[in-house]
Amino acid sequence: MVIVVRHSARREDVAALTAFLTAQGVSVTPVPGERSTLLAVVGDTSRLDDDRVAGFAAVEAVRRITEPLPLAGRGAHPADSVVEVGGVPVGAGHFALIAGPCSVESREQLLPLAASLRAAGAQLLRGGAYKPRTSPYHFQGLGEEGLALLREARAATGLPIVTEIVDPRQLPLFEDVDLIQVGARNMQNFELLKELGRIDTPVLLKRGPSATLKELLLAAEYILSGGNGRVILCERGVRSFDTATRYLLDLSAVAVLHERTHLPVIVDPSHAAGAARYVPSLSLAAVAAGADGLMLEVHPDPAAALSDGAQALLPADFAALAKQIKALRAALTESGD
Amino acid sequence: MVIVVRHSARREDVAALTAFLTAQGVSVTPVPGERSTLLAVVGDTSRLDDDRVAGFAAVEAVRRITEPLPLAGRGAHPADSVVEVGGVPVGAGHFALIAGPCSVESREQLLPLAASLRAAGAQLLRGGAYKPRTSPYHFQGLGEEGLALLREARAATGLPIVTEIVDPRQLPLFEDVDLIQVGARNMQNFELLKELGRIDTPVLLKRGPSATLKELLLAAEYILSGGNGRVILCERGVRSFDTATRYLLDLSAVAVLHERTHLPVIVDPSHAAGAARYVPSLSLAAVAAGADGLMLEVHPDPAAALSDGAQALLPADFAALAKQIKALRAALTESGD
Amino acid sequence: MVIVVRHSARREDVAALTAFLTAQGVSVTPVPGERSTLLAVVGDTSRLDDDRVAGFAAVEAVRRITEPLPLAGRGAHPADSVVEVGGVPVGAGHFALIAGPCSVESREQLLPLAASLRAAGAQLLRGGAYKPRTSPYHFQGLGEEGLALLREARAATGLPIVTEIVDPRQLPLFEDVDLIQVGARNMQNFELLKELGRIDTPVLLKRGPSATLKELLLAAEYILSGGNGRVILCERGVRSFDTATRYLLDLSAVAVLHERTHLPVIVDPSHAAGAARYVPSLSLAAVAAGADGLMLEVHPDPAAALSDGAQALLPADFAALAKQIKALRAALTESGD
Amino acid sequence: MVIVVRHSARREDVAALTAFLTAQGVSVTPVPGERSTLLAVVGDTSRLDDDRVAGFAAVEAVRRITEPLPLAGRGAHPADSVVEVGGVPVGAGHFALIAGPCSVESREQLLPLAASLRAAGAQLLRGGAYKPRTSPYHFQGLGEEGLALLREARAATGLPIVTEIVDPRQLPLFEDVDLIQVGARNMQNFELLKELGRIDTPVLLKRGPSATLKELLLAAEYILSGGNGRVILCERGVRSFDTATRYLLDLSAVAVLHERTHLPVIVDPSHAAGAARYVPSLSLAAVAAGADGLMLEVHPDPAAALSDGAQALLPADFAALAKQIKALRAALTESGD
Repeated sequence: MVIVVRHSARREDVAALTAFLTAQGVSVTPVPGERSTLLAVVGDTSRLDDDRVAGFAAVEAVRRITEPLPLAGRGAHPADSVVEVGGVPVGAGHFALIAGPCSVESREQLLPLAASLRAAGAQLLRGGAYKPRTSPYHFQGLGEEGLALLREARAATGLPIVTEIVDPRQLPLFEDVDLIQVGARNMQNFELLKELGRIDTPVLLKRGPSATLKELLLAAEYILSGGNGRVILCERGVRSFDTATRYLLDLSAVAVLHERTHLPVIVDPSHAAGAARYVPSLSLAAVAAGADGLMLEVHPDPAAALSDGAQALLPADFAALAKQIKALRAALTESGD
Repeated sequence: MVIVVRHSARREDVAALTAFLTAQGVSVTPVPGERSTLLAVVGDTSRLDDDRVAGFAAVEAVRRITEPLPLAGRGAHPADSVVEVGGVPVGAGHFALIAGPCSVESREQLLPLAASLRAAGAQLLRGGAYKPRTSPYHFQGLGEEGLALLREARAATGLPIVTEIVDPRQLPLFEDVDLIQVGARNMQNFELLKELGRIDTPVLLKRGPSATLKELLLAAEYILSGGNGRVILCERGVRSFDTATRYLLDLSAVAVLHERTHLPVIVDPSHAAGAARYVPSLSLAAVAAGADGLMLEVHPDPAAALSDGAQALLPADFAALAKQIKALRAALTESGD
Repeated sequence: MVIVVRHSARREDVAALTAFLTAQGVSVTPVPGERSTLLAVVGDTSRLDDDRVAGFAAVEAVRRITEPLPLAGRGAHPADSVVEVGGVPVGAGHFALIAGPCSVESREQLLPLAASLRAAGAQLLRGGAYKPRTSPYHFQGLGEEGLALLREARAATGLPIVTEIVDPRQLPLFEDVDLIQVGARNMQNFELLKELGRIDTPVLLKRGPSATLKELLLAAEYILSGGNGRVILCERGVRSFDTATRYLLDLSAVAVLHERTHLPVIVDPSHAAGAARYVPSLSLAAVAAGADGLMLEVHPDPAAALSDGAQALLPADFAALAKQIKALRAALTESGD
Repeated sequence: MVIVVRHSARREDVAALTAFLTAQGVSVTPVPGERSTLLAVVGDTSRLDDDRVAGFAAVEAVRRITEPLPLAGRGAHPADSVVEVGGVPVGAGHFALIAGPCSVESREQLLPLAASLRAAGAQLLRGGAYKPRTSPYHFQGLGEEGLALLREARAATGLPIVTEIVDPRQLPLFEDVDLIQVGARNMQNFELLKELGRIDTPVLLKRGPSATLKELLLAAEYILSGGNGRVILCERGVRSFDTATRYLLDLSAVAVLHERTHLPVIVDPSHAAGAARYVPSLSLAAVAAGADGLMLEVHPDPAAALSDGAQALLPADFAALAKQIKALRAALTESGD
């Protein structure tokens, strides 16, 4: 951390700042310049609150040099992590194909779909039982009935299940879910994150639509610091000024996150695209970028979907895409040696 | 709502779409064009789910003409609403000055501050007891002790209190809070909004950092449709590409929201600026834009603040600003006639 | 400037970097830390190219501490500048009201309008003769005929004229223009800026829709370093994710720019709003924020306007707004003492 | 185009609007609703100016249904275009690998580099002779000397050359350039685009950092409507709120542009990443997304580069990446059948 001291700072204000920093266990080296003095702060700055430092009277600006990520960062954990989800490994070269409908709608919708997804190569089944919707007047999910149908589909196909939690009070209902999803809108629902830190079910943490990658990693840090190290990160598009797609898929997030963290990184192109016809292009791109998995929305009859039908692939299109992904991964593995 | 039909749509797919729409109680007029057909949909489209319509095979695009806001919109409620907060009216010409520390830190911090704010013209006292922080390693608030100190400050000064809720399970603790704040990160914590719709305490709903104004109004609709009509909206800055300020304060939100909704609209310049020295300029601008109130962070000793010290005004600066605001409002009222 | 040295940097790479920096006339202090070494660079870093420094093998990251603004910055020029435009002072407490149509369309449109604007209090007359339009199929301006009409309006009313240049080859035509406008899309048309640095006509430099304030100031630096110190900056809205207004007016730019530069700062609410009904609210806000002037679009018959009619005020609305602005400025001046 | 008529519109204002539209050669169908009337406008609306329509007193809102792209759009030209650049075809399945230094710096830098790029599989040589730089104090390019060195490198290697123009007055110097680049900052330098429409050299048009895809296509329309149909589009990253990469590469642009236009679409990952270590991941992603080419920055000694060294690949890294791209394209072609 580097602190720029105000030109006009009083000697006692600088002393107060230095005393505060030293008390936090870091060491401080002043570097005098022509216009202003810098304080170079070294040691474990991960628990220092930049905003609090910035509040001192002597401070003009605070610049972070290293990310304050004691658990999610590569510093303490250089090797890639593998997160096991119901027996399926994700990360460190293990690629996971997650597929399913946006919302669980009925047994007739879910069970045949799950079987066909499995046949096409999906390794995990996704489906929403509790749906966070922008408008209160839209379908909010089947709730517990949806969870029961997911369990039934898991029993029938053997696919572990992924579904979204939207309230800490729902945790007892999610006990046997294989991968609990935290949606983009809840990425900074810190009370929910704290609760997920206390269990040991794997968590799929989606990036908020205006979250920086640093904020995503700090949200993961909430779960990790609670004691649950089984976190998978998911890029799903950020807000942008162009409405050509629903969100702007940030595929540079894959390389940047892989550099900064050991946690697996997957990509959800369906929500970013908002239109099924763009999903294959973005899926292949995410795989080539080095993602550890994909989460894709598939529906047997998008026109009848109760949510997000426009972005759902048909099962046959998913099967064709899964084949292409396989070929692509083989080519990348061979040529990357 | 206008629906663009795909050039290549099959007759039966168009029929399926039309049948679905008619069943929702709206009427459909086809307008044939050279390249594509439009369907003009009229009637009460507020409960129609655009995404669901977009999922139909025949649909190329869906364009909303009017906002689906049955309760927050001006349609059903043309006159400005007034929300009473502990006896203080907000909205429809009633301007509210809300001030206090970012976090409640101690009796020594809060009580003298509250007295000085009251003397300077503040009408409501803000203070955080539960703090949603980006990093798990930073100060998370005093919790219940903070709420108790706020009550004590209210008893001492008569100022109604405003404080943030971060979890639906905290509701019993907030029973006698005068104005319950939903922070920007929780704007789309729909389960929390639903709970707040079931009580009748006024709610201060802050705009999420990447929420459109339409999404903010739909979040308000969650509370209103639950039965609680006492909602105040708050602009507090959105994410932008420039880091010159912490967030980019969107003062056009004041005029746009006043046009679309009858709910009061206040502005929080402190969080947007992230630096106290920009707060007076932005506060005066918000007042001139027509805001129904301001929420300002004030701290007796910003250097010792446990959160967001850099953006806190000193009590004396707040008093000077309050005087300017009063003069400004007087000039606007006179010259606006 | 602070440079973070890679953990794995070779000794000779660090030496090469240090030698390069020293050769540029700055001094370098290494600050060893646990995980990485910092180099604190002090002296005149304004001409150092961050990107070039970042290219050195030893470098992990470069952080700027002070802005590289030798001429636009407050460092060398602490007092506010006043720019005289055809006898009208702008800046340092001198407020300028600039008004006129988006495009000059005809004598019948311009001359009576200019007279009414003058009567209502406008001090400068704006009007586009060369129009940069997003589509090649839209009205591109009257060109030289438009310039001639502006001169005629100036002769009739005494109002100095403001009009946009879009190509360095047009400069001879702009010789007697009082204030040459560089539009948002040309803010980084550096060849044009260099030409404007060689003349001494005042320049109105509009912020690009995704330009940071630092980039705006560096664009000004192009003109200043050429020898023309008469630059006025203009905030006109940035790109955002919300389409509620055409652009998002950044009123924090007023306080931030006033802090960093001595150049006058005006605001154009018309282009940001994109709708005349939001212009009064944003205009008053800009004045209260401390802008040194406003640029407003006014048209006698917006429905017949050849460009941007939707955002044009009627002359009567402009007159009412000008009155309010005057009252507001009086209140601010009195209460600010 | 759909026009929403104001609820309170007067009959004569609607008549004026309808008369205007009819005079433009389109037909107008009114669709009365409960709250407002819609006008469905069909026919060739490509030359209609939305903003002008929005200026009519009767108009509440204007919604575009189809893009106004008579020449760049798929409507008039359904098949993919191939643009020949010095004998190298680009588009419609022809993939072009463009590589070279950010700036041409010297014969010693350029000639051996060009030979090694050619050996590694590059098909076109890029290099900047005129550099648009954010700061006036940074290296501005070698100018004519740089162009001469590019010609020399072309003569030595047979690689056609790509270089950026920054001013319409430079056109005579660019006569024998194989592909003239319009940089992101000049995407809406319409006077430059008009000049490029009058010649028949191929043009590489880069997307501006906050340009929508529609605006990029309209900029292309400027060149096409002048008579030059040889335009290649280039995605190079947009402005975002996260500074993890220099710009946010928008790989959904590839699929969206391919849907809307017949023009070839290439990707520049170097400028978006801003750091060489992210370039391979983004390059492979762009290829998998379906780009018609890549433009990559390569430098023999990034630490000595006069501009953008941090994002330049070493020649050996480029060669390894070119091999991977080849393998990837082969896998995509086979599995896509």
